[in-house]
Amino acid sequence: MSDSFFQPVSGMDLPRFAGVPSFMRLPVITPGDPRRAEVDIGLVGVPWDSGTTNRPGPRHGPRQLRDASTMIRAQNGATGIRPFEHVNCADLGDVGPNPADIPDSMTRITNFYNVLKSQNITPLTAGGDHLTSLPILRALAADTPLGMVHFDSHTDLYHSYFGGTMYTHGTPFRRAIEEGLLDPNRVVQIGIRGTTYDNEDTDFARAVGVRIIRIEEFFTRGIPDVMAEARSIVGTAPTYLSYDIDFVDPTFAPGTGTPEVGGPNAFQALQVVRALDGLNIVGADLVEVSPPFDASGATAFLGVSIMFEMLCIMAQTQPTY
Amino acid sequence: MSDSFFQPVSGMDLPRFAGVPSFMRLPVITPGDPRRAEVDIGLVGVPWDSGTTNRPGPRHGPRQLRDASTMIRAQNGATGIRPFEHVNCADLGDVGPNPADIPDSMTRITNFYNVLKSQNITPLTAGGDHLTSLPILRALAADTPLGMVHFDSHTDLYHSYFGGTMYTHGTPFRRAIEEGLLDPNRVVQIGIRGTTYDNEDTDFARAVGVRIIRIEEFFTRGIPDVMAEARSIVGTAPTYLSYDIDFVDPTFAPGTGTPEVGGPNAFQALQVVRALDGLNIVGADLVEVSPPFDASGATAFLGVSIMFEMLCIMAQTQPTY
Amino acid sequence: MSDSFFQPVSGMDLPRFAGVPSFMRLPVITPGDPRRAEVDIGLVGVPWDSGTTNRPGPRHGPRQLRDASTMIRAQNGATGIRPFEHVNCADLGDVGPNPADIPDSMTRITNFYNVLKSQNITPLTAGGDHLTSLPILRALAADTPLGMVHFDSHTDLYHSYFGGTMYTHGTPFRRAIEEGLLDPNRVVQIGIRGTTYDNEDTDFARAVGVRIIRIEEFFTRGIPDVMAEARSIVGTAPTYLSYDIDFVDPTFAPGTGTPEVGGPNAFQALQVVRALDGLNIVGADLVEVSPPFDASGATAFLGVSIMFEMLCIMAQTQPTY
Amino acid sequence: MSDSFFQPVSGMDLPRFAGVPSFMRLPVITPGDPRRAEVDIGLVGVPWDSGTTNRPGPRHGPRQLRDASTMIRAQNGATGIRPFEHVNCADLGDVGPNPADIPDSMTRITNFYNVLKSQNITPLTAGGDHLTSLPILRALAADTPLGMVHFDSHTDLYHSYFGGTMYTHGTPFRRAIEEGLLDPNRVVQIGIRGTTYDNEDTDFARAVGVRIIRIEEFFTRGIPDVMAEARSIVGTAPTYLSYDIDFVDPTFAPGTGTPEVGGPNAFQALQVVRALDGLNIVGADLVEVSPPFDASGATAFLGVSIMFEMLCIMAQTQPTY
Amino acid sequence: MSDSFFQPVSGMDLPRFAGVPSFMRLPVITPGDPRRAEVDIGLVGVPWDSGTTNRPGPRHGPRQLRDASTMIRAQNGATGIRPFEHVNCADLGDVGPNPADIPDSMTRITNFYNVLKSQNITPLTAGGDHLTSLPILRALAADTPLGMVHFDSHTDLYHSYFGGTMYTHGTPFRRAIEEGLLDPNRVVQIGIRGTTYDNEDTDFARAVGVRIIRIEEFFTRGIPDVMAEARSIVGTAPTYLSYDIDFVDPTFAPGTGTPEVGGPNAFQALQVVRALDGLNIVGADLVEVSPPFDASGATAFLGVSIMFEMLCIMAQTQPTY
Amino acid sequence: MSDSFFQPVSGMDLPRFAGVPSFMRLPVITPGDPRRAEVDIGLVGVPWDSGTTNRPGPRHGPRQLRDASTMIRAQNGATGIRPFEHVNCADLGDVGPNPADIPDSMTRITNFYNVLKSQNITPLTAGGDHLTSLPILRALAADTPLGMVHFDSHTDLYHSYFGGTMYTHGTPFRRAIEEGLLDPNRVVQIGIRGTTYDNEDTDFARAVGVRIIRIEEFFTRGIPDVMAEARSIVGTAPTYLSYDIDFVDPTFAPGTGTPEVGGPNAFQALQVVRALDGLNIVGADLVEVSPPFDASGATAFLGVSIMFEMLCIMAQTQPTY
Repeated sequence: MSDSFFQPVSGMDLPRFAGVPSFMRLPVITPGDPRRAEVDIGLVGVPWDSGTTNRPGPRHGPRQLRDASTMIRAQNGATGIRPFEHVNCADLGDVGPNPADIPDSMTRITNFYNVLKSQNITPLTAGGDHLTSLPILRALAADTPLGMVHFDSHTDLYHSYFGGTMYTHGTPFRRAIEEGLLDPNRVVQIGIRGTTYDNEDTDFARAVGVRIIRIEEFFTRGIPDVMAEARSIVGTAPTYLSYDIDFVDPTFAPGTGTPEVGGPNAFQALQVVRALDGLNIVGADLVEVSPPFDASGATAFLGVSIMFEMLCIMAQTQPTY
Repeated sequence: MSDSFFQPVSGMDLPRFAGVPSFMRLPVITPGDPRRAEVDIGLVGVPWDSGTTNRPGPRHGPRQLRDASTMIRAQNGATGIRPFEHVNCADLGDVGPNPADIPDSMTRITNFYNVLKSQNITPLTAGGDHLTSLPILRALAADTPLGMVHFDSHTDLYHSYFGGTMYTHGTPFRRAIEEGLLDPNRVVQIGIRGTTYDNEDTDFARAVGVRIIRIEEFFTRGIPDVMAEARSIVGTAPTYLSYDIDFVDPTFAPGTGTPEVGGPNAFQALQVVRALDGLNIVGADLVEVSPPFDASGATAFLGVSIMFEMLCIMAQTQPTY
Repeated sequence: MSDSFFQPVSGMDLPRFAGVPSFMRLPVITPGDPRRAEVDIGLVGVPWDSGTTNRPGPRHGPRQLRDASTMIRAQNGATGIRPFEHVNCADLGDVGPNPADIPDSMTRITNFYNVLKSQNITPLTAGGDHLTSLPILRALAADTPLGMVHFDSHTDLYHSYFGGTMYTHGTPFRRAIEEGLLDPNRVVQIGIRGTTYDNEDTDFARAVGVRIIRIEEFFTRGIPDVMAEARSIVGTAPTYLSYDIDFVDPTFAPGTGTPEVGGPNAFQALQVVRALDGLNIVGADLVEVSPPFDASGATAFLGVSIMFEMLCIMAQTQPTY
Repeated sequence: MSDSFFQPVSGMDLPRFAGVPSFMRLPVITPGDPRRAEVDIGLVGVPWDSGTTNRPGPRHGPRQLRDASTMIRAQNGATGIRPFEHVNCADLGDVGPNPADIPDSMTRITNFYNVLKSQNITPLTAGGDHLTSLPILRALAADTPLGMVHFDSHTDLYHSYFGGTMYTHGTPFRRAIEEGLLDPNRVVQIGIRGTTYDNEDTDFARAVGVRIIRIEEFFTRGIPDVMAEARSIVGTAPTYLSYDIDFVDPTFAPGTGTPEVGGPNAFQALQVVRALDGLNIVGADLVEVSPPFDASGATAFLGVSIMFEMLCIMAQTQPTY
Repeated sequence: MSDSFFQPVSGMDLPRFAGVPSFMRLPVITPGDPRRAEVDIGLVGVPWDSGTTNRPGPRHGPRQLRDASTMIRAQNGATGIRPFEHVNCADLGDVGPNPADIPDSMTRITNFYNVLKSQNITPLTAGGDHLTSLPILRALAADTPLGMVHFDSHTDLYHSYFGGTMYTHGTPFRRAIEEGLLDPNRVVQIGIRGTTYDNEDTDFARAVGVRIIRIEEFFTRGIPDVMAEARSIVGTAPTYLSYDIDFVDPTFAPGTGTPEVGGPNAFQALQVVRALDGLNIVGADLVEVSPPFDASGATAFLGVSIMFEMLCIMAQTQPTY
Repeated sequence: MSDSFFQPVSGMDLPRFAGVPSFMRLPVITPGDPRRAEVDIGLVGVPWDSGTTNRPGPRHGPRQLRDASTMIRAQNGATGIRPFEHVNCADLGDVGPNPADIPDSMTRITNFYNVLKSQNITPLTAGGDHLTSLPILRALAADTPLGMVHFDSHTDLYHSYFGGTMYTHGTPFRRAIEEGLLDPNRVVQIGIRGTTYDNEDTDFARAVGVRIIRIEEFFTRGIPDVMAEARSIVGTAPTYLSYDIDFVDPTFAPGTGTPEVGGPNAFQALQVVRALDGLNIVGADLVEVSPPFDASGATAFLGVSIMFEMLCIMAQTQPTY
């Protein structure tokens, strides 16, 4: 049972549009806070998009996601789960990036997550572009390669961009596999679609054993069948969950930088997460929400709704390495 | 057969962007108009949102709905119904609310609908937030409790807000049942979803006999099956139809104040109304369209498309108390 | 003193966001209405933009201007004038154009204004693109050439476009002078600016005696001096007032199709009209408000604020031919 | 195999947001260019919307479609087709219309396409409103009537508008059938929906043999079944493909002038084109993208994604008359 | 000299788009916080707009103002003042209103400010609609009437609305004068403009001694002269500063509910505050920022820029009752 | 006299919304084009914003500026200059940056401009963020330090950001002075305003001799006086002109990443450039236009209007080193 301190403010007590917006109206527990040690799941923002090859903006994602998250109430209507009663949750603030220096930023992020791991805090991250996942994995997978369930319209498995640039939001999982942070045989990518330059990424995936489920297969087989396969791929070993908002059709999530038309709708966007209950999730992220392309906040609201579904499954199952 | 006076102006005669925008380009018949007595179905605006607990705006709904409604033509393409040839329809103008006084506004609304009922005019209302339905029901159900088909993402069955406030857009049907305006055993709520504070509303529903069909059940069973059950619940006795635009997925209807992701699409939004043909509908409303959150008017256009579907089924079946 | 029937609805009685939006909340008096003969000043919409050479949209102008006009109250705060108490004002509806046929539309417009003239109704028109002014002048100036005060960033004096097309929104006043509808020696154009193709328009102006006051001269001399000259140019003979919203800086009036940066601000936009009090104005228009380029309605609100200033000076001085 | 000259610029070499935006980053080959004769498929813009009866704007379509098209990469992710390697593709620029003269514009368009036909260039057109298709058909079908697969929410088969106007975007295919440009028995219209004035269009369709598949039938039968019928209707004879963006649900494609709610989603919007592979397509268009109603460019991005699917099937099968 | 604890986070240390957004990146000091007693100037949000008679939305003001305020740096570029080094500043969070109960909300607000006053914390408030000022004044002026410098386009001196409603955002200062909270002879209202219903408000002002400086006088005399008069009116006695964002021209501040065209620009909006240095300001507010009407945040950024100017003059002069 | 080849397409021949959008409708002359040697003034895009410390987006600037630039006609209405008749102007395309590698991008840019300088082409650049100016200056000032007229709300003279990062858009001119690319005694910065972290930048300016004219001084003295001083500072020696769009008030130019309220209006934004006629300008740029923050394109239209004013003065005076 969670501590009463780590509960969100109710909209019945304080209207949901009121108050300083922390993630899901949880208490903000900064690094030096004495109660940090009691946190089980920490919501963290990584406002960073220097790896973006096309339209930037996800550096503004955590701010808008926090704002939208005040619309989230305490109970999951579909599953009945009340995550804040299971474990102690808190908003741990943002990792401060260096917008003009990619290596420096990656170091700052890895350092932040190293501390979380040492404190046994399971991180649920709000990005940031998808390069964000790499420095997080460097912390979480320092000791052992992880499996990964990856929702996205892109594989992010390219070797390099622009004549040899190795660190962009199109390369994080190529690097993670090369660095031994992910076990490619326990990685599944779901929702891939859109036009491509070539097959360099998918050839690599096939060579190392990453399973790619394109959107056509996803729609043809249906969510229960696809997600059952995904569960069997990652198994019960430690697993990372990475959710790029551009997995969802851009009409439902226009606030992103590299949209690909023809993806799942909002209901399906939530369903795929619910299907992951019981997995051994040691960390998760929701990335690529780009507020400049959706000032209305609708994308962010969908984003935090997805984060809440993640939180519900994470709160029910204690992860183990 | 309807009177030629009560016909919409054709876009072939006057382009649809031209003219003072009344509902569906119908004549405006004010309270003192001598032809008021000839009206069968009256379209009424209730520009009022004082019961809103979160993001206000539906007070601007009727204005934008009228504007968008000039895009509606005379014939339902799907069913072939030409409602304006069945019965005399008219725009009866707006009920003037008092934005700073909830009880005063409710009295004004009930008084307006008392007159309509006395004139045998069936009202099709454009809200307004969902509290609007309560003062309408006080008029329409003054003599006998009504059944209700209720499309929404929320139950609106809460007891109170903010430490005891009884009249908000989250409480109208709790009050209506308490006041004997609705027969809870003849009430069905469809599309409920999203996060919740607790189960206070659904516990009440279960206790009094209100049937709730959550969105997961809705999608799993499909529209024909769900709507057949809905029809059997309300039966042939007098029934009210209340349609909160947030029943629809917010991507299709962003212009609303309390969106919940993961709802029906626009085609389904129309289908569920078509499935109600032949019921004994004594009044209907479309509420919670909030123009400040969709200046494009797309939500309003969907809203009036839903109102037109309502009108088509209402025009075919004469209601009886 | 005006008739109590011809008064706007007060926002104290009915909130300003409520009700079917007629111009300035005045009664709508259609052509066959028995009270039409009592109207002194008629507000008319001409939803037509077929003469637009660049970005279309002003066909939607009257609708949005009516909507914004419900924000206008009964009294001019700056001058104290209460125009609706001076003369009988009414919304006379829209002239129905043929969007796909320019000559047909011009005939329809001229016919509509011929009737107004025969009824001694002074028209205050909401366009429509600037070609709208030509068919209006064909009615109003049928018997005698008029003077004109013309606010605009363009002269609209070009001979033709696209290899010989004579009727566009860049040519109305060339045609009007050629057709003897305007007395060029009594025409003043104020606010001209922006890049140009060549000097064909200004050469013509100089040749026939039209006075052009460019924006640089306008700012250097100041409004009192410039407007005094304008008044002396048109004198006391019958004068038309034509106000293109692109006279105003596009930051203040973005909703228009051919903006030119560097114009007057909103306060100055009103001042120039107030400076025309006492002139013999037989008709006026406000054109080129294009809602697709300003869904917020801010341009329309400025537009109707300008129309209200026009109405105030027109209501004080009875025009005579 | 295509010429290396006719390849799009890769985003790996030049970021996709960089460079002058031609269609799909292809070379721009103007009429007098010596390499024009080598072009197999020519992408052409027709920035024209004078036939619009409701909300104008598609004249801005080609500009925005070019901008969005720089997001398209070289390979179709779903089918693996790399169209630019099959045939020589180029951006042939825009046909210059006369915005204020419909007959003049139609002549200009037909002349442009007559030349393309004489050069054996298969045109893939970005409109413009739907009247655009008529002058194109006058060129392509000059010698023999064509079949047509037509995706739309409207039939565009009306006789006339506004009291006899024959050339609007609601009449092109009525005219095309009357002029013998289309063989009505080889015409199928898919996706028709929304309210209608009357049955004048569908009565005509039935009388001459045009097959209409309404949206209800489309959803009930499913895409494979519907598209198999469509393929059998047009057969192997020369066929035109006309795609009105308002076929798609307006939530997915808001940037259009006459939306009708309740259409296909973005994935289905692509699927229907993929189902046309192998047909004898002598020309295709994507029309009615109206940027003023979607400044975000999302509609245009979906539009060019559809154009790319068209291009993929056109590049695989050489058309023959 | 202020405490190092009460300093904003520097953008050099943490980029300005990062972090949970408190007012001006100051520490959040909730009511029970032990350091509350050390606060000199407290920034408070009042997210409440139930008094709005026209377009609602200011309940969302504090959230957006906090977001925009992270753009504010430590030093005033124009005056060189570094307010956070003068006094201890903190974000004191929001007063929780009851959106559906005006009297309850007013009580909650007054109670909150009573505590601040008892703690000798000078409040700088972000509203909220203008009715917000009344319950604040009930706390601050409980012992002695205050003077007031009031920037606005409306007097907010009306007696009542909608047939007798006494508490709206159009009546706060009528009530405050009636209740003895303001000394009318020490009240100056600057920037009044726009259309009006009648002269009821200005007649009252004249009768009790409130000085109104309309916008025409403001522009004619210039800011130094006008502000010198304003300073002499309020003198050195305790003074409240109330700034309605609709004082500024709506082009510069579109995010507000009752705009009036023709106001000061952004530079002038700051200048008028700088001219108040040295006054005895016991409290200040910035009200009527309505995010739904400016999702871009530009209005909020101007709003917090004005608040920073207020803070600079308040930080330099210790108020005394 | 310029070559007829280097003329913009007239809007009379091809409507301004038509055609592939090159800068000002000029011919696109790529690096290998044989006519490149004939170019006098080359318009270049640098779509790069990796140096942005706050809100990114200017990488999209050149695309939107080209789009808006098709609204520019051949003649300056204010001065009568027809620049395209004076010298050969062309669109030279974009420099391709590496979005994820700042040093690589700077090298690419300097290389591009080295070639231009060797070809005696005077560059008029559309950025990009303000760091863009540094690699340009490295080419243009390789042989001799330049003077600079710099319009901006920020000095961009900071030493470093985020703990030592030397290359951001806040540091270009600090670097340029350190590298000997600018002669600080011939540098004037105009329009500086807003909050600041400290005085590190202005202390440096004073120490090396850079003249800063803050916005308060700018408005007090007026444009003629200020610009006369600016002219005397740079004298007749080679001078660079750098114009950050955030010099202009953000209401007039919202599409930028680091706005500061209270700047010049659009008319003044043009005036300051006109006042530079006759100077020895060897290069100019317009930077920090960020389309994601102004999808309407209004900022870009003002931006190209400023670029056209620059072009007019550059076309009249041949620069000499």
